[in-house]
Formats: sequence, C-alpha cells, structure tokens
Amino acid sequence: MPEFRQNIATKEWVIIASERAKRPKDFAREKKKKKTLPEHVDDCPFCPGNEDMTPPAVLTIEADKGWAVRVVPNKFAALKSDLSPDRRREGRFVCAEGFGVAEVIIETPDHSGTIGTMERSEVLNVLSAYRTRYLEIARDERINLITVFRNHGERAGTSLVHPHSQVIATPIVPPHVRDQITQAHVCYDTYGTCIYCEMIQEELTDGERIILDTDAFVVLAPYASRSPFETRILPKQHASSFGSISQGQMKHLAEVLQTTMGKVYRGLGNPDYNYIIRSAPTGDVNGRHYHWYIVIIPRLATPAGFEMGSGIYINSVTPESCAEFLRDV
Amino acid sequence: MPEFRQNIATKEWVIIASERAKRPKDFAREKKKKKTLPEHVDDCPFCPGNEDMTPPAVLTIEADKGWAVRVVPNKFAALKSDLSPDRRREGRFVCAEGFGVAEVIIETPDHSGTIGTMERSEVLNVLSAYRTRYLEIARDERINLITVFRNHGERAGTSLVHPHSQVIATPIVPPHVRDQITQAHVCYDTYGTCIYCEMIQEELTDGERIILDTDAFVVLAPYASRSPFETRILPKQHASSFGSISQGQMKHLAEVLQTTMGKVYRGLGNPDYNYIIRSAPTGDVNGRHYHWYIVIIPRLATPAGFEMGSGIYINSVTPESCAEFLRDV
Repeated sequence: MPEFRQNIATKEWVIIASERAKRPKDFAREKKKKKTLPEHVDDCPFCPGNEDMTPPAVLTIEADKGWAVRVVPNKFAALKSDLSPDRRREGRFVCAEGFGVAEVIIETPDHSGTIGTMERSEVLNVLSAYRTRYLEIARDERINLITVFRNHGERAGTSLVHPHSQVIATPIVPPHVRDQITQAHVCYDTYGTCIYCEMIQEELTDGERIILDTDAFVVLAPYASRSPFETRILPKQHASSFGSISQGQMKHLAEVLQTTMGKVYRGLGNPDYNYIIRSAPTGDVNGRHYHWYIVIIPRLATPAGFEMGSGIYINSVTPESCAEFLRDV
Repeated sequence: MPEFRQNIATKEWVIIASERAKRPKDFAREKKKKKTLPEHVDDCPFCPGNEDMTPPAVLTIEADKGWAVRVVPNKFAALKSDLSPDRRREGRFVCAEGFGVAEVIIETPDHSGTIGTMERSEVLNVLSAYRTRYLEIARDERINLITVFRNHGERAGTSLVHPHSQVIATPIVPPHVRDQITQAHVCYDTYGTCIYCEMIQEELTDGERIILDTDAFVVLAPYASRSPFETRILPKQHASSFGSISQGQMKHLAEVLQTTMGKVYRGLGNPDYNYIIRSAPTGDVNGRHYHWYIVIIPRLATPAGFEMGSGIYINSVTPESCAEFLRDV
C-alpha cells in the first residue's frame, strides 16, 4: 500500500510507493561499470603539477610531499566577492549583483580518490578545510549563508572527476532555507525543543532506519526520505552551525563520513551523488531551534513533473529497507 | 557580471551566471539526434489495439476511426482511490495511507506524435481531457490538489515514449504549493492585487522576455528563470484555477500551447522537458490572490548540491536571450 509520510521538520510530504517498490538490491544490481581512474592526469587542472591552471590557493594543507588539500577560488564562479550585496529594484522586480564567494576544495592529489575509499586522515583534512573556510568566510558580515557541498558524477551535476567539494556563500537567505528555520522556530516556541533533536530521538527509539549509531553522530535513512538511499549524518549534541564543530567532533565525523560513504560506494557501486552540509545562517550561529547535519543524496531517481509541480517526492523504496541494506554493507 | 534575481511571487532567488553563460544557440547545437519513432509499436501499451494492456478508460474522446484521446488509471499508481485520506501519528511522525488519484492521458493514437507537431484540434482534445478529468476529480471533497503534468524523455523522468500526460490528485496541499499561496495572500492583503497579474503587467511593460502575446494568453521567459528556456504560459484574465477555463479560452490555449511547444521542439531539437499546470487547491477555486499557469521546463541543466542545499538555482543563460531566441523560431 502506498503511504504519505511527513518530514516533521520541514512539513514536506513524500509518497513511499511501495507497490512499485524496488528492493535495495535492485539498485546495487543496476550499478554501471565505471572505468577505473588513473592516479594522475596530465591535463587535469586539479592534479599536482597543474597548480597554475587554477587561481592561487586561499588555503593549502601540506603533506609530507607537496599538498594534501588545496582550496582555490572557483575559476568559473557563479558569484564574485568584488561586487555589491545591495538589493535594487527593476520596476516591480528585485535583483542584486552576484556578490558572494565560490571556492573549490581539491580534496586530494590523487585523481582516482573518493571519500568512501580515502584514508581517515585524508577525510579529516577535507573536513578541516571545510571548517577553516567556513569560519573565515563567515567573518564577512555581508555573508548570511554558507553552503558546503559535493557533486559526484554527471547525474549529480559535475563533469570534473578529480575529487573536489565546493563552498558557495551568499548574502541571501533564500525561502528554501528560511522556511526550514521558521518551522524549527514554531517547534521551539511551542515545545521549547529543537525539532531535529526530537527527530533524532524518535529515530533512535524506533531504530529501523538507523544505519550507524556512535557516541557523537547518528547516521540514518530519514522517515520521510525523498529518494532512494537518502542518508543523513546528524550530530547528537545540539548545534545549529557546522562552524561550531570542535576538533574532537571532527575526528568522529571523519570516521563516520568515511564509513558512510564507504557503505554507499561499495553497496551501491560508486553511484553519482550529492552531499550537502546544512547549517544555520551565519548570523544565527548559536540558535537553539536549528540543527546542522549532512545529507547525502545518491542520484538514483529522476524528479519529474509531479515532484516539480507539487514538491511531493515519490520514493520507490522504503527507507527501512535502505537502512537495513546499508547497515549490512 | 553574475546577478541575483528574485521571483516576486514566490520570493525564491536565482543566480543568472552570465560569465559562464551559454548562448541559446549553444543549446540548439547540443541537440542530440533522436531516432525517428514509428507511428505504431506492437507491444506499446498505449498504442491502438493494445487497450487491454491498460486498466479500462475513465474517459475516451472518440475520433472518426477509433479514439483520439484515452484517459486510464495509472497501472503503476503511486496513489490509490480506495484508501483513507486520514492522517495518523506514528510516534512523533505523521503519515497517511496513499489515498489519491493517478491517471494517464494518452494524447493520441500516434506513437510518434508530440504536442509541438500535433494538429491544433488534437491539442484541443488533450486540453479537453485535462479539463474534464480535473473537474470530475475536483468533485471529490477529499481531494485538495490536482497536478496535471507531462514528462517528455528520459531526463524528464519517463521511459514510456508514447505521448502521454498525467494527473495526480492528492488530499494534501504540500508546503511547496501552500508557500506560494501564502506569498500571494501577502500581496493581495497588502496591495489588493494578484501578484501574478502584477508580474504579467511588468513583463508586458518591459517586453524583453515576452515570447508570444495574444489576446488571451502571454508566453514568457520569467525574469527569475531557474533554468535555461523555462517558459510560462499565463492567462491574461485573472483566474486561480485551471478548472475554470472556458471552452473559448481552451481554443486559444490549444493554439498557444501548440505554437510554444513547436518553438521548443524545433528551436531546441525536441529536448526532454516537463510541463506542469499550476492551479490553486480545489477548495480555493475562485481565489482573488492566486493565478493558474503552465510552466514548461526543458531539462537542459542538472540541479546539483548548491541548488538542493539552498534552493537557489544557477542559470547559465539569460531569460532575455532565451525569449529572443524562441520569439524568432
């Protein structure tokens, strides 16, 4: 029987269409053979030796030989830092210059690397780069939102295969983000609790959708997953901003992220995916209502007209079976 | 210079990233050769002669020989009409049985047909089927939202090539829809006007983004287009629900829809696309604040981590150049 489920944090609904349901194994079976990548590609702008093909690094984490992680301004930036953040009117419309920050985190010198197969120390370097840039960019009071994300593979919107993440920082807090925060405020003002802390508690009590449970983080397939194998990594300790993560928590997160991405890599055969760190706007860093987390979205389904029109996603596989599958990988 | 633009109806922002901008011609040049389809395929469930491969029709528009349009329940329905619309709690979570309606509109017996190349009378038949089913389904008071949409091609989420549209009706009005209505209410309560009527006025005054302007409808590339060649068809006369369209307006719409889809088909080389009829919830049929319209989204770009995380879409081509290109097709 198909079922509607509500995401209690955002109030968004999904349909778990169990009668057209695939089993998790079907996705694993579909895995396409990806060609093995070389460790170095001569004309890859992110490979060692080609550092002059990118703008100069804003952050370099050194390795014994050369660099471990490089952060560079995006050469094809959608936003630029030398513009004005001021909004202006064009008749009834509202616009602004494309002020903001767009950076690329080159995660490893190894062209063939990927989070799921990296050493834990390498993943920790990547997270350190995220955090350092997050905190540095957040110092600019014209910036209100910092989005750290990773696009892996063509279906996830990238054509550059060398392992990299991105940071885009905007002066604007868009409705997509503000609406989630407004909903979190409603819960806080009603019950005095963080809706995400509530959700973690409910998921831990239920247990069926838990993929990994550690002292500091919980990894789960959300009750109202929008697409197959949607996975979230949530800190158990309440914190609204990724920027507030401690060095100790980062070590735990490196372990949890590497384990989770390893499960996705091996279990689903290196699928295309996006992951995103959702964090409160930078002006709201100690919020009691919002809760930062990482969401991983394997690109195994295509949103179509109904999803675009209604915002209701039809998911062909239950999060319970996804969690069971990934637990056992 | 990249530019932020706001959709004044939804308050959503986009980035027009003009420096990585493609020209409209680049999209046309990228058009992949699609193989020519036969007019009839023996094992296609939507081709004439295979009527027993679908559930019995709920509506048939007859032709001189056989049928012109058939509407059938979706055999692989994500929602079913024999379930309960009642919400229930599962601990802190909220869910409901998958009650609703899911139908398929088989638009023509011709396996190789497409809206952009059909006769105008055929397009009118398709619109008549939309309207008849919309009004019939809306009579069920348990239904609150009816989404009529079309998925064309694999990138748009369909694998069945025989020309068809879909209707999905839900008891639920999701936040994605409600938020747009709430914003429209804010405008109505502030200025006493429909924000969409305002937008049409602004676009007509400006003129740069108009693709087609008729007595009854305007076709335009919205100021804050989320993706290349996003196109809207809006009725000039205020009406909140597609269900209220008159027979006379339908004839105009058939002409406008056929012309528009013909421009998309020829100009962009039969791209994959979705179109969606956005209409007020069925309980709000005479709303003075909301305005129904059709949105056409060619699937020429892939939303990635930034779009999913922030809801801000990066568009690599200006709506002004898209409108100019389609005007001239």
